[in-house]
Amino acid sequence: MDYKTSGVDIDAGNETVRRIKGLARATFTPGVLSEIGSFGGLFSLGASWRDPVLVSSADGVGTKLRVAFMTGRHDTIGADLVNHCVNDILVQGAVPLFFLDYLATGTLSPDIAEQIVGGLARACQASGCALIGGETAEMPGFYAQGEYDLAGFIVGGVEREHLITGAAIAAGDVLIGLPSSGLHTNGYSLARRIVFDVLKLSVDSHVPELGETVGEALLRPHRSYLPVLRPLLGKRILKGVAHITGGGITDNLPRIMPLGTGARIDRHAWRTPPVFRWLGEAGSVPEPDLRRAFNMGIGLILVVAEPHVAEVQRGLLEAGEANSLVIGAVEGGTSGVRYA
Amino acid sequence: MDYKTSGVDIDAGNETVRRIKGLARATFTPGVLSEIGSFGGLFSLGASWRDPVLVSSADGVGTKLRVAFMTGRHDTIGADLVNHCVNDILVQGAVPLFFLDYLATGTLSPDIAEQIVGGLARACQASGCALIGGETAEMPGFYAQGEYDLAGFIVGGVEREHLITGAAIAAGDVLIGLPSSGLHTNGYSLARRIVFDVLKLSVDSHVPELGETVGEALLRPHRSYLPVLRPLLGKRILKGVAHITGGGITDNLPRIMPLGTGARIDRHAWRTPPVFRWLGEAGSVPEPDLRRAFNMGIGLILVVAEPHVAEVQRGLLEAGEANSLVIGAVEGGTSGVRYA
Repeated sequence: MDYKTSGVDIDAGNETVRRIKGLARATFTPGVLSEIGSFGGLFSLGASWRDPVLVSSADGVGTKLRVAFMTGRHDTIGADLVNHCVNDILVQGAVPLFFLDYLATGTLSPDIAEQIVGGLARACQASGCALIGGETAEMPGFYAQGEYDLAGFIVGGVEREHLITGAAIAAGDVLIGLPSSGLHTNGYSLARRIVFDVLKLSVDSHVPELGETVGEALLRPHRSYLPVLRPLLGKRILKGVAHITGGGITDNLPRIMPLGTGARIDRHAWRTPPVFRWLGEAGSVPEPDLRRAFNMGIGLILVVAEPHVAEVQRGLLEAGEANSLVIGAVEGGTSGVRYA
Repeated sequence: MDYKTSGVDIDAGNETVRRIKGLARATFTPGVLSEIGSFGGLFSLGASWRDPVLVSSADGVGTKLRVAFMTGRHDTIGADLVNHCVNDILVQGAVPLFFLDYLATGTLSPDIAEQIVGGLARACQASGCALIGGETAEMPGFYAQGEYDLAGFIVGGVEREHLITGAAIAAGDVLIGLPSSGLHTNGYSLARRIVFDVLKLSVDSHVPELGETVGEALLRPHRSYLPVLRPLLGKRILKGVAHITGGGITDNLPRIMPLGTGARIDRHAWRTPPVFRWLGEAGSVPEPDLRRAFNMGIGLILVVAEPHVAEVQRGLLEAGEANSLVIGAVEGGTSGVRYA
């Protein structure tokens, strides 16, 4: 028995690595010291930092991957993964430095791997983040034909004095919501049940309520908030920032709130995008469950002292975000999120 | 339809996070600033670095996981993953700073997650590496009942002047091999084919040639070389270090060799451990395939100038490694690995 007979094709792996190399190299920033193919990726912090704090996060794409499988489009989920990770460190004030991916599949297709990594590389480049390494694992028997899993790992940096921690959040602070681009990467197990099992639609089905196909609505990439938030970093006017992922506003906003403070969300402050209404009605999903499964149209929440609200919204506007909204306030002597 | 009906149990996820928190906190080093549960993990580099280079790596456990599934032991693969990652950055001279994991499963069992993360945490602690974050993904329909995938991401640090790059490797340099503890994490697709399909053994089968069961032989954790190599770091006597993973010595040693240099490996310099002979014979695996699938008993190779060999071996001995061996030399005007 030779090695290839066992289901592992080292040569296909090497071909994939060759294709990925060029994609990754295009993302390299001045800090990158290594060539892809070294055992580890090398990144020099450089001399410009005074007291750097490294902020890191690991994430996956979740079952949104299954929509990619169904549509045969593998070039958008890279942006989902990278932007999710970028947002997760952005909320603590960090800008991205480098990224590594883990791509696991049953049988490696260099073509599909190239589409996936191409998407990762484009999203990394858009965020000034070097795709410095990763692992492509061929695991026969673990994944169904044509399926894979994808995880990402990001490291960013922030000066310690500019860390956004939420510690200073107090009653009376204002909650500013930024619109999401769609479901982002959360709630897909529920959404798929509703769309494919209850409504029995296909990814090509046109949905009149949405004015687009199921595949277009469900595959729209997770938005990065780095471009619109970057001008506000390091100015000490963001007391806290919450990325609205799995668990919705209900579970994510409390993660940054100090003990003894809660949030009042004015549910009429923004118009819930049609995709969430459509899913909720088709699936008869109770409102509290809907709010824990989905972002409901708000992908990021900024906590700002009342006197800074206008400055923050002006900064967002100048950076291209015209649709920020005051969606609630911090309340004392309570905890969690209250929808009013 | 509520959220739980869709197959995602946020409460089981929260229970898992609660259990993991305690395990992870035990690994925290003075650099860690964050509590688990923040969006990103925070690590302060501190003031002791002059010109730090961050060395990072992503890896998985591969199909060794299936042996864990078969034995029902989930507390050892954490060490496989962490130690694989530790070695991958160690070869460039870096010591571990922090680690994040990605654990993906169909239905989350807090008990199994606790075993897995417990193993990760113990291995991190042994390497002085903070388990600073991670993602536990519940992906209904992606993984078979009782199965999961596990990936890890490590970041370490090295002073730029102490980077081990392989650039100075030249003809005449000596190759010192360090013993592996077994298969480490590579060659499991081939090994499983031979053991379970050809020999039709079970994990409980006792193998006379090995003096132990199949499960014991195949599940033995990947060894970390950090403890025995640490005293030699920063001394400029290691020209290059190669971690022998997938592709064996054949593919991994050339990764650190400059153009125009090759390696001569004396295949009689060490005794191939019984497990590799046993697998090779039972599977009728051609010798070149065997050498690309497995480490053949050598898990790490140091490239050292001839005058430093004694000093390096003495350093290894004092750090507890009594079985380092000269296994070959660097040759000029050639490339790749030649087995003599």
